[in-house]
Amino acid sequence: MKNMYYSELGKAQVLIEALPYIQKFNNKTVVVKYGGSAMLDPELQMNVIKDVALLKLVGMKPIVVHGGGKEISKWVGLLGKQPQFVEGLRVTDAETMEVAEMVLNKVNKNLVQMMEKLGVRAAGICGKDGSTMHVTRKFVHGQDIGFVGDIDKVNTALIDTLLENDFVPVLAPVGMDDACQPYNVNADDAACAIATAVGAEKLAFLTDIEGVCLDPEDKTTLLSELSLSKAEELISDGFIGGGMLPKLKNCIDAVKNGVSRVHIMDGRVMHCLLLEFFTDRGIGTAIYKEN
Amino acid sequence: MKNMYYSELGKAQVLIEALPYIQKFNNKTVVVKYGGSAMLDPELQMNVIKDVALLKLVGMKPIVVHGGGKEISKWVGLLGKQPQFVEGLRVTDAETMEVAEMVLNKVNKNLVQMMEKLGVRAAGICGKDGSTMHVTRKFVHGQDIGFVGDIDKVNTALIDTLLENDFVPVLAPVGMDDACQPYNVNADDAACAIATAVGAEKLAFLTDIEGVCLDPEDKTTLLSELSLSKAEELISDGFIGGGMLPKLKNCIDAVKNGVSRVHIMDGRVMHCLLLEFFTDRGIGTAIYKEN
Amino acid sequence: MKNMYYSELGKAQVLIEALPYIQKFNNKTVVVKYGGSAMLDPELQMNVIKDVALLKLVGMKPIVVHGGGKEISKWVGLLGKQPQFVEGLRVTDAETMEVAEMVLNKVNKNLVQMMEKLGVRAAGICGKDGSTMHVTRKFVHGQDIGFVGDIDKVNTALIDTLLENDFVPVLAPVGMDDACQPYNVNADDAACAIATAVGAEKLAFLTDIEGVCLDPEDKTTLLSELSLSKAEELISDGFIGGGMLPKLKNCIDAVKNGVSRVHIMDGRVMHCLLLEFFTDRGIGTAIYKEN
Amino acid sequence: MKNMYYSELGKAQVLIEALPYIQKFNNKTVVVKYGGSAMLDPELQMNVIKDVALLKLVGMKPIVVHGGGKEISKWVGLLGKQPQFVEGLRVTDAETMEVAEMVLNKVNKNLVQMMEKLGVRAAGICGKDGSTMHVTRKFVHGQDIGFVGDIDKVNTALIDTLLENDFVPVLAPVGMDDACQPYNVNADDAACAIATAVGAEKLAFLTDIEGVCLDPEDKTTLLSELSLSKAEELISDGFIGGGMLPKLKNCIDAVKNGVSRVHIMDGRVMHCLLLEFFTDRGIGTAIYKEN
Amino acid sequence: MKNMYYSELGKAQVLIEALPYIQKFNNKTVVVKYGGSAMLDPELQMNVIKDVALLKLVGMKPIVVHGGGKEISKWVGLLGKQPQFVEGLRVTDAETMEVAEMVLNKVNKNLVQMMEKLGVRAAGICGKDGSTMHVTRKFVHGQDIGFVGDIDKVNTALIDTLLENDFVPVLAPVGMDDACQPYNVNADDAACAIATAVGAEKLAFLTDIEGVCLDPEDKTTLLSELSLSKAEELISDGFIGGGMLPKLKNCIDAVKNGVSRVHIMDGRVMHCLLLEFFTDRGIGTAIYKEN
Amino acid sequence: MKNMYYSELGKAQVLIEALPYIQKFNNKTVVVKYGGSAMLDPELQMNVIKDVALLKLVGMKPIVVHGGGKEISKWVGLLGKQPQFVEGLRVTDAETMEVAEMVLNKVNKNLVQMMEKLGVRAAGICGKDGSTMHVTRKFVHGQDIGFVGDIDKVNTALIDTLLENDFVPVLAPVGMDDACQPYNVNADDAACAIATAVGAEKLAFLTDIEGVCLDPEDKTTLLSELSLSKAEELISDGFIGGGMLPKLKNCIDAVKNGVSRVHIMDGRVMHCLLLEFFTDRGIGTAIYKEN
Repeated sequence: MKNMYYSELGKAQVLIEALPYIQKFNNKTVVVKYGGSAMLDPELQMNVIKDVALLKLVGMKPIVVHGGGKEISKWVGLLGKQPQFVEGLRVTDAETMEVAEMVLNKVNKNLVQMMEKLGVRAAGICGKDGSTMHVTRKFVHGQDIGFVGDIDKVNTALIDTLLENDFVPVLAPVGMDDACQPYNVNADDAACAIATAVGAEKLAFLTDIEGVCLDPEDKTTLLSELSLSKAEELISDGFIGGGMLPKLKNCIDAVKNGVSRVHIMDGRVMHCLLLEFFTDRGIGTAIYKEN
Repeated sequence: MKNMYYSELGKAQVLIEALPYIQKFNNKTVVVKYGGSAMLDPELQMNVIKDVALLKLVGMKPIVVHGGGKEISKWVGLLGKQPQFVEGLRVTDAETMEVAEMVLNKVNKNLVQMMEKLGVRAAGICGKDGSTMHVTRKFVHGQDIGFVGDIDKVNTALIDTLLENDFVPVLAPVGMDDACQPYNVNADDAACAIATAVGAEKLAFLTDIEGVCLDPEDKTTLLSELSLSKAEELISDGFIGGGMLPKLKNCIDAVKNGVSRVHIMDGRVMHCLLLEFFTDRGIGTAIYKEN
Repeated sequence: MKNMYYSELGKAQVLIEALPYIQKFNNKTVVVKYGGSAMLDPELQMNVIKDVALLKLVGMKPIVVHGGGKEISKWVGLLGKQPQFVEGLRVTDAETMEVAEMVLNKVNKNLVQMMEKLGVRAAGICGKDGSTMHVTRKFVHGQDIGFVGDIDKVNTALIDTLLENDFVPVLAPVGMDDACQPYNVNADDAACAIATAVGAEKLAFLTDIEGVCLDPEDKTTLLSELSLSKAEELISDGFIGGGMLPKLKNCIDAVKNGVSRVHIMDGRVMHCLLLEFFTDRGIGTAIYKEN
Repeated sequence: MKNMYYSELGKAQVLIEALPYIQKFNNKTVVVKYGGSAMLDPELQMNVIKDVALLKLVGMKPIVVHGGGKEISKWVGLLGKQPQFVEGLRVTDAETMEVAEMVLNKVNKNLVQMMEKLGVRAAGICGKDGSTMHVTRKFVHGQDIGFVGDIDKVNTALIDTLLENDFVPVLAPVGMDDACQPYNVNADDAACAIATAVGAEKLAFLTDIEGVCLDPEDKTTLLSELSLSKAEELISDGFIGGGMLPKLKNCIDAVKNGVSRVHIMDGRVMHCLLLEFFTDRGIGTAIYKEN
Repeated sequence: MKNMYYSELGKAQVLIEALPYIQKFNNKTVVVKYGGSAMLDPELQMNVIKDVALLKLVGMKPIVVHGGGKEISKWVGLLGKQPQFVEGLRVTDAETMEVAEMVLNKVNKNLVQMMEKLGVRAAGICGKDGSTMHVTRKFVHGQDIGFVGDIDKVNTALIDTLLENDFVPVLAPVGMDDACQPYNVNADDAACAIATAVGAEKLAFLTDIEGVCLDPEDKTTLLSELSLSKAEELISDGFIGGGMLPKLKNCIDAVKNGVSRVHIMDGRVMHCLLLEFFTDRGIGTAIYKEN
Repeated sequence: MKNMYYSELGKAQVLIEALPYIQKFNNKTVVVKYGGSAMLDPELQMNVIKDVALLKLVGMKPIVVHGGGKEISKWVGLLGKQPQFVEGLRVTDAETMEVAEMVLNKVNKNLVQMMEKLGVRAAGICGKDGSTMHVTRKFVHGQDIGFVGDIDKVNTALIDTLLENDFVPVLAPVGMDDACQPYNVNADDAACAIATAVGAEKLAFLTDIEGVCLDPEDKTTLLSELSLSKAEELISDGFIGGGMLPKLKNCIDAVKNGVSRVHIMDGRVMHCLLLEFFTDRGIGTAIYKEN
């Protein structure tokens, strides 16, 4: 007669296997940088949100930091402007900044909506709310590229309030300077700054690559773990280039500032967050500090 | 020698005169519906925000609910669409809803920014955050006008959390239905529903009229106070029409549901909120319940 | 390449499927009456404890109430006495009571030990600690059967303290009368009294039968749900007999006193608690109140 | 039409101008030493109390420390005794001490009464309550002048309790020694000791002089600000004499012990506290620590 | 060898005997009306204070309400006035009121001092502090007797704050009317009003008589217990007269308003409070409500 | 007439004499190691429990740690085994460990029962509950003596929870190693480890000797106080031997680790704890740290 429960029993065993992982991260704060393809494909999007919801429900305190670059370009275009970039950074005049905020807030509240749909309480904020992110104007080799900011101070009062009261904070990468002028902020930088300021246990970057590969063309050279010193060595030896360079530098900063482990993972892999948190087979690359 | 302090002394006396008013509203929750011309003129805008900041600093708990109708029309136009209305309600297709949310969030975070600039902690939310406002689809005489919702449930958990932790909640009038589909909501309705749900002491509507006039063409017929029964009588006798009718009905509902006093005031009057709260000369019309 | 994650992905999907169930029982108190074969077989025992640990970790507040009948008989025998029963109740002289307490505490602390091994904080108490269970002497048709008590009052102060401070209370069925004389208590009665007193959401009896069958000889007559009125009808019509009769009466009492659902399930089924709580296929019989 | 609001609008603007000051002192503890003519003139008295009430209502935590020298002399006289002083200190035999306590408590409860009349909750204590002020006997050049004490320990438990529960503590300058014998204490010393012990942001002395003048005969030599080192220099150079000397030494001590700014101001100026706290034109002399 | 401990052992046994009494009153609020000879004799005074200190230390929450009639008369006399009474109530002109307050505060702070000397934290307040006692002017058969008030409202906020923070409140019988004018209040009335407002478990009147005697001339007719109905019967039958009548009426009021037991006891008996609270032999008369 | 109160008055005076002692230990944590004859004689047992109850009721936070050696031997014998010891430590095979736990829990819950009978809330735990005591296996000169453990870590979470919620923790000396295997622990060691971990003010060992005597045969050589350095000197000079040696070493450890005073006293003296805590005549030997 037990046969009738067979496949259900399998499910129960999977839950039991998750026990030590759930225990390990109980009450820990984790920051998820949500970006790349995982933001565009509706199925992937829902999977990421479900993963975050589960992290919350089994006792962690997730914070989501998201980007919105491709959507911003689309809307800037709709309004008849041509997006411009300097070294990968969007040149942001006042009009572009206005559109950028509108689009980022749209993405932001959309993520909140998906989370609330799953029954998880969420609150969508940007760096202006509670003066969460303070910035200074960024210059690229002395060139003014408009309202693009470098985060120099994080005020965690609002995020702390939300976490303590059981809301998942969802943060759009907009900051303000001393004059309370809004600035566009790189989402990776924002995730890193927030993770450091709240003393997160983990910071996970959902990206469009598998992780750090010694040879970017050859996925079999993926490094599943990377110590701080090794990461710095790879950079100084010139192995790391392209978009991975600033990302890896961010990871190194976060680890140096107290985040236990920073993960670079492929957001296109279904349930990549759960695979990383709740199974033995971690995915992507984990950067950590040697003791 | 005391002369040199003369004008300063005058200021001190003004502060002292405010004492009993400050005492009266200490720790009380007040909802400010912010709309009309006061949202468009930059000087008026800053004055309203300063007033709200002062209410907060002298011990009240203000909540700001704002609209954004004119801005929405502008952006819908920018994108090449023609705004459509049925009985004053915007026909809201999916595309319009997307733009409406973007614009309302822009307005929302802009108000937050102004408040933070004054050193007051604020958090910009909409009815999606924390599932604060739940709606059902609205039909006008059976006609479907798209994503326009009637509020039928308010969840105050997020607003309560923000108030208790010293943030001023700034709310955009967007709600969700059972399927977590976003809906446009009338801002007056939203202010009324929130004031009722949090048990506000006062609800103040900033409008473009002086208040309730027996003869709308003759401002000398302004009623400075209006009891519930008198208000209902005016309506049943057909004295009230136009945009005032739904607004007054909202006021009546709010008073019936426990808000002590509801004010309709002219948002174009500089510091109208302070005049109402801190001086003997109330402005506009106050609707109240007879004992 | 995604293939290498295949079985892990399956696991992630199982976790995601559990999401709505985890949500449903979040922060709810559940009482597990642990007895029968599930206490004797070491593998079953470990499975039950793991299930309880998982309930705790995903946000519920489990309380375990256990029996120990067979162990008591064994130790009474080791000391050269012959166990005696009147209508299924152990005749309990002073010497037997001493042994019963020793054995029950041994079982109790052993369960605590298993839970601590899984990293879950537990505290083993009996009804004497904090005067948790107060009893009066029980008579069977006027016959004195010794230190066997009927629970007439539950003091939840100690259990509440433990739950609020994140400990799983594990309770041995011993109570005290007015003179603080210890008494043996039926474990089913104890589970029922505790569940009622703490206002538990669920009470689950782990037994050696599949649930309530219309024909005990024919397992295909298992009733998966049973309303209060139907349960009372079955009893008055004489369908229920044997050991099931007092158990079902207990269930009825618990539901009448506010426990939402009471489950009779087969403790020999691996992970029966998880199957019941986290999958669509409930097992055993659920007794509930019609609205 | 706006004309009718004109003077009211002026008032509103005054309130708005106070905004940054209110913000600056929000939740800060300030000690007001209340003495001199401001205690004798009923109108001045009411103005000081109103000022303190306003400080409380806009979010500060004021503590009032008062003297009562002239009243004590009056009552000692009424009872047929001749007040005696050694270097400005009252020779205090047992009988005089009894009268002093009675008079100080009368003044104390009278201030409480005035504050309660304004709707501000206050509690009148002396250094005996909660053993708030511990003293040792003071000798003047070896001469015993009776029950005059030097404060050597402050127990802030009662004051903290009152502040946390929204009462304004009003303190009479009476202390006790090891044997719990009451002693008269100089009110300036008491204010200074209390401000230091509670870590006050500000300490304001209401006196009968304009502040520190380089030439006491020439009010145009008033110093509006005075750094610690400059104050010490003035003393060592012999510029400071008379009653100002001990007062300035007290100020220096307070600043050295952590009080941010100490003010000596003319209590005869109407609303001097508000002028100092809420306008740009500070009055009197502020002693502060250079960074 | 145990002999050397003999008398110490006796002491230990006394402590053990107090165990059930300590338990019974643990965390209970008790009001002690302190007056009569026990206030004048220094040895009795210290004994009463020690008793109150012990009540506090073994876990009760005592509140002391004191009188001061004889002292007031003495000081009024010292100032050359003749005390006047109408039906036992002091005719209180403005000057007398000023002296009365001074004297009552002197007595008040003296009791605080004695308690602090025993290491018990105390705070001396009157009905003005925190607007604890609100009164209306009392008239005797229409005759105005000055500032003598009837308590009509008690605000327990300050007393609650003190009790919760481990201070013993010591209260002088002064109240204020709507205009915050101070009034003299009968201390028995004050004790009764406070006991009722805080929901005291016990109210003990220390008086100069043994208790209620059927024949005031014959102490053997002392009633050790008196039910509400019996007390009312005694009054209506004319058995009770003199100063006992208002006191007994107060007791009846207190019991009717929720105080469990009210005691009238002889304050001249050493340690009368301890005898009443900690031994089987209650003293004086206890008024209680029949179930 | 006062004569009739005479003996009661004497009792009141004893209570008053205890006042300063009660004050001194108010809110302090004290650990009582309960063992020896005081555990076997029913009258002594009840006296010790009454003493502990009184400590609790007058405001201390007692923790009881008990042994059970003689009872364990009895039950091991009942089951037909011969107790074995190596250097005073019980050789503990699996079967003996099982019996030891049963007996210790029996003793444990019996003490709880006695305390509850006196109306004091108690909770019986062992080192397994809440993983309170972690041990490593003990070897005697390299010889394995079975499940006998050395405490190397104390987790005070459960004890803290119980103390904060007004329960008296009663602890049986059983610990667990890394594998959650239970181990027998020396009760003196357990008391010492717990007292150190919770930062107890006092640790009192109830033993069968008067205290530390310079000549164990001559009770007149009893040392009533012993400084740390003197105690270490006595040991190094070889004055201390037998069972006193490990006990004294434990005392020294406890004092070195922050326990203010450790007492070795004769548990056979009636109310020895009260004599020590509440009278001037301390009993036994107190070990303390010189300043």
